[in-house]
Amino acid sequence: MAKVKKAPRPKAETPKGFRDYFGTQVTERSDMLRTIAGVYHRYGFDALESSAVETVEALGKFLPDVDRPNEGVFAWQEGEEEGNGDWLALRYDLTAPLARVYAQHRNDLPTPYRRYAMGPVWRNEKPGPGRFRQFYQCDADTVGAPSVAADSEICAMLSDCLEEVGIPRGDYLIRVNNRKVLNGVLEAMGLTDDSQRDAVLRTIDKFDKVGENGVRALLGKGRLDASGAYIDGVGLSPEQAEPVLAFLTSKGADASETLDNLRSAIGTSEVGAEGVAELAEMAALLAAQGYGTDRIEIDPSVVRGLGYYTGPVFEAELTFEMLDEKGRKRQFGSVAGGGRYDDLVKRFTGQSVPATGVSIGVDRLLAALHAKGRITSDAQGPVVVTVMDREHMADYQSIVAELRQAGIRAEVYLGNPKNFGNQLKYADKRGSPAAVIAGGDERARGVVQVKDLILGAKIAENATLEEWKERPSQYEVPRDQLVAKIRDILAGQG
Amino acid sequence: MAKVKKAPRPKAETPKGFRDYFGTQVTERSDMLRTIAGVYHRYGFDALESSAVETVEALGKFLPDVDRPNEGVFAWQEGEEEGNGDWLALRYDLTAPLARVYAQHRNDLPTPYRRYAMGPVWRNEKPGPGRFRQFYQCDADTVGAPSVAADSEICAMLSDCLEEVGIPRGDYLIRVNNRKVLNGVLEAMGLTDDSQRDAVLRTIDKFDKVGENGVRALLGKGRLDASGAYIDGVGLSPEQAEPVLAFLTSKGADASETLDNLRSAIGTSEVGAEGVAELAEMAALLAAQGYGTDRIEIDPSVVRGLGYYTGPVFEAELTFEMLDEKGRKRQFGSVAGGGRYDDLVKRFTGQSVPATGVSIGVDRLLAALHAKGRITSDAQGPVVVTVMDREHMADYQSIVAELRQAGIRAEVYLGNPKNFGNQLKYADKRGSPAAVIAGGDERARGVVQVKDLILGAKIAENATLEEWKERPSQYEVPRDQLVAKIRDILAGQG
Repeated sequence: MAKVKKAPRPKAETPKGFRDYFGTQVTERSDMLRTIAGVYHRYGFDALESSAVETVEALGKFLPDVDRPNEGVFAWQEGEEEGNGDWLALRYDLTAPLARVYAQHRNDLPTPYRRYAMGPVWRNEKPGPGRFRQFYQCDADTVGAPSVAADSEICAMLSDCLEEVGIPRGDYLIRVNNRKVLNGVLEAMGLTDDSQRDAVLRTIDKFDKVGENGVRALLGKGRLDASGAYIDGVGLSPEQAEPVLAFLTSKGADASETLDNLRSAIGTSEVGAEGVAELAEMAALLAAQGYGTDRIEIDPSVVRGLGYYTGPVFEAELTFEMLDEKGRKRQFGSVAGGGRYDDLVKRFTGQSVPATGVSIGVDRLLAALHAKGRITSDAQGPVVVTVMDREHMADYQSIVAELRQAGIRAEVYLGNPKNFGNQLKYADKRGSPAAVIAGGDERARGVVQVKDLILGAKIAENATLEEWKERPSQYEVPRDQLVAKIRDILAGQG
Repeated sequence: MAKVKKAPRPKAETPKGFRDYFGTQVTERSDMLRTIAGVYHRYGFDALESSAVETVEALGKFLPDVDRPNEGVFAWQEGEEEGNGDWLALRYDLTAPLARVYAQHRNDLPTPYRRYAMGPVWRNEKPGPGRFRQFYQCDADTVGAPSVAADSEICAMLSDCLEEVGIPRGDYLIRVNNRKVLNGVLEAMGLTDDSQRDAVLRTIDKFDKVGENGVRALLGKGRLDASGAYIDGVGLSPEQAEPVLAFLTSKGADASETLDNLRSAIGTSEVGAEGVAELAEMAALLAAQGYGTDRIEIDPSVVRGLGYYTGPVFEAELTFEMLDEKGRKRQFGSVAGGGRYDDLVKRFTGQSVPATGVSIGVDRLLAALHAKGRITSDAQGPVVVTVMDREHMADYQSIVAELRQAGIRAEVYLGNPKNFGNQLKYADKRGSPAAVIAGGDERARGVVQVKDLILGAKIAENATLEEWKERPSQYEVPRDQLVAKIRDILAGQG
């Protein structure tokens, strides 16, 4: 007899590049987002939640990142079957939707409009280790404020955010630069060819990795990289390359020295002078608010990839060292960044609207706090009320209801109660602080047994046999003292 | 001369059926989600956040709602250009992803697995007024627990959630039914034809709207509906229809009377008897936990549309009356629902896994709380520090920094400061409680002016000219007493 072919079962898998978050992975992030939202709110920013889906037209078809113009979005066409409607897409960041929202609602919104937004964004990129196609962003932007007072406020707010989520002062640094200074340097170099300008910008972006001599070589003839491959240079003469190197190495002992160095790097460029003046003003405004160079400093090596920045740019770095998976010391690096982009709204309205903002990488920040052991998440499991006697489920439910009403996280074991060992294994897997046991004998005598699982685990780990005997981790308490006993255990005073 | 055609500007519009949420619309919802998450957590449920994107294969191609099998999801095919990869889609609910997650991670998860999830879901439906294609769900489910203790726990938890978000006892009712009872009734009717069974189920679902006589007519020959159209009936004889009507009208004065009525409606059906026994057990368990019929009651008229329910089903209704937009009294209706579905995980693993859960409609709940005036959201705008003299921006920034460090929501006016009236209009638009004014004269004398905008608004509304003069809403305070003065104003004691 021929076998009947069954339809194959669907695979139980996340799509490639996507992942699930469990328990404290979810709650730690939402706690962090709440803390950051609190700071944003205090600075006068209002919440905005736009939809995850936008028209491709409104988003612009591509990511604005100059390095990867062809990286895409997840998009599809509206219209049943015929596929003849609008193209829709998942947002790839929170800034493009802000531009759309501001253009759409500008008559109802205050000007300047300070808004914050937090939520997932999607990138249709090749997934890789630790590289996901859905991740969180957490942004704050001010639209309609042309002065650098708006930028410096955002830098101060970023500093407050980092400290409130648990990065102490000294363990981070916000580095500020200005695109106009960079443009001034390019002007001073006499570079007019766009592709050559782009090549210079890409080279500058490598300063952190290859250092001064590396950049010097890459601006000239090229160099061998670490893998032994020869990387072609931009082809500038040493004289032409000089302003770039002066710019990159212009950081002085203090802000005024750095500003002086920058002034000489930009030569007679007007836009460059404007940029230096803006940096000087930001430094003064931040100092007036009490944000010194231990928190925020001018650093000309900050470039930031996005092509759309037009003025101040900034980046927050964690400065402490940690060990990577191979035991090598390394710095954690950038956890937030942003800057001024004055042309995004113009796409819609034809009018230039000044805007500036910041995006905090919450997942990276969480990873950093974990690496430093600075997250104390409430990972405690529930008190588990075990089931000795299925017929008396109502009793167990009334015990657990009493615990919950006292604000104690608790549950009845709802699996098959036959094997009591499985119930204790379950409590262990849940990280339960205590198990409650009540059989027929206990019920008759009006008592319950309470097993202190925290203490039990400690004793099992460290105790000698004598100590084990002397310090029992299981107690019999009158039924009406159960809540009090559990509270003692939770307070570590079992 | 021919005009040069410019590329048209993109439209600044949300895609049809999507919307933006501003300010308190966002924060009120996140506050509610946090409150509900707190209750779920106390009941032992752990957070889960799966990705918004799933494979179409894992989701199943269609919504499980029997009434609308062709309503779709937003889907697209992976693979660059050639479109030859997996089909991906946005999740349409949080239950289908849970089944996938449980099947994928079941060896690492505790059994039973209690999880909660909250977030947006997407439906590719025709948008309509108040009907959006992205909305929030807020679910809790227990996977791997076969007994109705799990279902009754979820009903108790739902009751706690409603009360903690601000629906007082008496203003809601959780109505419980059991699919097995309904199946027993269909068995007692001798209905074996699937399409006829479906027609009967759809008719039962109309009981709330058309009442006993309406259902009687629709089970028989049909009836004229309110619009005058004739609706064909199922074509049952009055005798055949009788068990359905007995079932629908079986609600008695108390649970035991209802259960008795149900027992007679199901005749000798075994599955029906199982269903009645489960309802009886749930009633007993809920009573033991202190949840009386003022909160949760058996109501056989609850059907719930989804085809996948296999046992207990439940629905939370708000019972207070309110006026609709035309001034007619109406009840607010359902805000949450759920039930037992034992076959969802089986799609992946081939093994039946018992599961039960609830979904709370947070947006409807928020609308209800607004309608009853029970939301007191912190909609207060920031204190606005006005700019009299752009050259002294650093002073204004130091004032605002001081306010923020004292925990007071505050900002400097960052628009064009030339027109002072615009600054006060801005403060008004933001709902600011106070404006701070400091010009050259104030700076010289070490004072600031504080305008109490709350009091100012009240005075402007109610006061006579005399009162206006006697109760000024603007004060001069020494610079170092600014924070204290603002605190007084915020406390309503300006």
